[in-house]
Amino acid sequence: MFKTKIKPEVLKELVDIVSVLVDEAKFTATKSKLVVKAVDPAHVAMVDLTLKKDAFEEYSATDTELGVDLDKVKEVLRLAKPGDIISIEHNEEKNVLQFKVGNINRTMALVDPAGMSDPKVPNLNLPVKIVISTEQLRQGIRASESISDHLALVANPDSFEVVAEGDTDHVDLKLPKDALELLECKESARSLFPLDYFSNMIKAIQSAPTLTMQMGNDYPVKIDFTIASGKGDGQYLLAPRIESE
Amino acid sequence: MFKTKIKPEVLKELVDIVSVLVDEAKFTATKSKLVVKAVDPAHVAMVDLTLKKDAFEEYSATDTELGVDLDKVKEVLRLAKPGDIISIEHNEEKNVLQFKVGNINRTMALVDPAGMSDPKVPNLNLPVKIVISTEQLRQGIRASESISDHLALVANPDSFEVVAEGDTDHVDLKLPKDALELLECKESARSLFPLDYFSNMIKAIQSAPTLTMQMGNDYPVKIDFTIASGKGDGQYLLAPRIESE
Amino acid sequence: MFKTKIKPEVLKELVDIVSVLVDEAKFTATKSKLVVKAVDPAHVAMVDLTLKKDAFEEYSATDTELGVDLDKVKEVLRLAKPGDIISIEHNEEKNVLQFKVGNINRTMALVDPAGMSDPKVPNLNLPVKIVISTEQLRQGIRASESISDHLALVANPDSFEVVAEGDTDHVDLKLPKDALELLECKESARSLFPLDYFSNMIKAIQSAPTLTMQMGNDYPVKIDFTIASGKGDGQYLLAPRIESE
Repeated sequence: MFKTKIKPEVLKELVDIVSVLVDEAKFTATKSKLVVKAVDPAHVAMVDLTLKKDAFEEYSATDTELGVDLDKVKEVLRLAKPGDIISIEHNEEKNVLQFKVGNINRTMALVDPAGMSDPKVPNLNLPVKIVISTEQLRQGIRASESISDHLALVANPDSFEVVAEGDTDHVDLKLPKDALELLECKESARSLFPLDYFSNMIKAIQSAPTLTMQMGNDYPVKIDFTIASGKGDGQYLLAPRIESE
Repeated sequence: MFKTKIKPEVLKELVDIVSVLVDEAKFTATKSKLVVKAVDPAHVAMVDLTLKKDAFEEYSATDTELGVDLDKVKEVLRLAKPGDIISIEHNEEKNVLQFKVGNINRTMALVDPAGMSDPKVPNLNLPVKIVISTEQLRQGIRASESISDHLALVANPDSFEVVAEGDTDHVDLKLPKDALELLECKESARSLFPLDYFSNMIKAIQSAPTLTMQMGNDYPVKIDFTIASGKGDGQYLLAPRIESE
Repeated sequence: MFKTKIKPEVLKELVDIVSVLVDEAKFTATKSKLVVKAVDPAHVAMVDLTLKKDAFEEYSATDTELGVDLDKVKEVLRLAKPGDIISIEHNEEKNVLQFKVGNINRTMALVDPAGMSDPKVPNLNLPVKIVISTEQLRQGIRASESISDHLALVANPDSFEVVAEGDTDHVDLKLPKDALELLECKESARSLFPLDYFSNMIKAIQSAPTLTMQMGNDYPVKIDFTIASGKGDGQYLLAPRIESE
């Protein structure tokens, strides 16, 4: 059983964050929360989102797995006006989701979730921890986009940098420790990431004013953030690229 | 003779409504009003618009037929600034329309109206009458667009529905009688329409807060609306599609 | 040596005006001003811009020639937020420009300016002088765009016209002497210009409320305007097209 009411902006944030990596995702509802986990087809990145019961206007569920086509949910979201509440109910008999927005009723076929793998979050020892303004990080990404397809995250004990190197040009966003919310870094660490993944991820995070990033040397980066004004949280994990010297 | 001054927004509404169906149209001016009628090339839909003399800032005309290229009128409309008044005068000698917007003079060649047929509005007995909020109907259309190329209008004695059926998904806008301005329906009626025509028509109607629709079972729909803040009126007629069971 | 701070809007105006004609340009800095001159590859038009020292927030330079890729400067401009100041410094050792916006550092390779010719402004005797509102002229250009690829400037002792002739249609912006800031014209003069060049030039001029145009009969037009709120000035020169009768 799955029967909820949700604000469009909360549903939109969840869908946007997941659809950076996949077109269809398994939504796992339990009595107290809704969880969505996904790995992108190239196995470069992973997302793990949790919306607590109180992120919804109304929520009642027992253990349910729903295979959801995210593009169709985006279509429903485009029908919502400010102040609207979206009702979503699982019709188990027909195995469809029933959406209601205003006077609109939309019945949506579900996708078989059996084919969707359950990503296992690897156990990583990431020695560096940074808490950074989302907007600052976005500016660093924008600056990198014209320079390279990759972006390096570089942590030092007294600063954090986002660096992009082109053939002739170079850009970096350099934030000294006091321009960050937090910087825990004993030894310098640097990892290179695909810019398109990193950029799409950070742009999809809409309401979190700050992000917590954990990283190492040539290691994945883990990005933790809140969603739904703190009534949920999310995590992205992104694999590094090999640096060519 | 045809010599008028008109507000850009009034001319724009007229042109937008007609250009849903045709690129060129015959404008028939008489002493008291301007009438534009057109049938689309596929003979699926018809439009019939009347602007009364007092919809214009100035109007003086004797019986005149003008074959007008609507795209060219849209170009003139793009030159108008808020508060501008557009002057239009028929130069009979050169057979051109002379437009004036601010200090811009534009001379526009006319199209021969002889080839433009005069649509005859068929005599239809449409038993159902609905008066609906334009905005509500638009929302139903938006919801249908991702589902199907067709849309059914369904009237019952106590409700009116806009329904779209896809292969796996389904959407409907269901309005009970009290969510409508008017519902006159003794027997249930349902007709199927091409969504692109219906959508473009309803989107072109800009200023009318409500529409009057008359329909039957597998019958055309007639849509009546005001233009120019009530100083004119219009009517669309759209042929039904055959429903395949 | 070249080391400055500049408001993004001033740098943007300079770059937009020059990039109408070229992708790369030679910036010539002296103690008191920055000068940019360029001719387009087809040798149809020329630009000559000067930003005085006080158009900058800070400026210190000795004679320096910099070959600048204008698209890269546009990328830097997109990083600036309202209120930001952009620092630009020439690193002579590496022969790069170093831009700084907020916490972003961008290093930009320079282009060899040796290949960029120094346009010589021809000595022209242009008998007609017009001072016109930039916005009025823009409206005339917009009106012409749907009619023709060319536009004629026509001056008479008592009026100035922008005229475009199509195969069947015709448009003109006709300004009597008292709708112009200034009209000095003893004999009628008319010259034809390529609309794309003329349109892009006039659209690139952002802050000047009026333009001074000097023209003759089948002669180039010279357009003088201020930039940076009067702390700089610019000039476009555009060659005429031959009128076919």
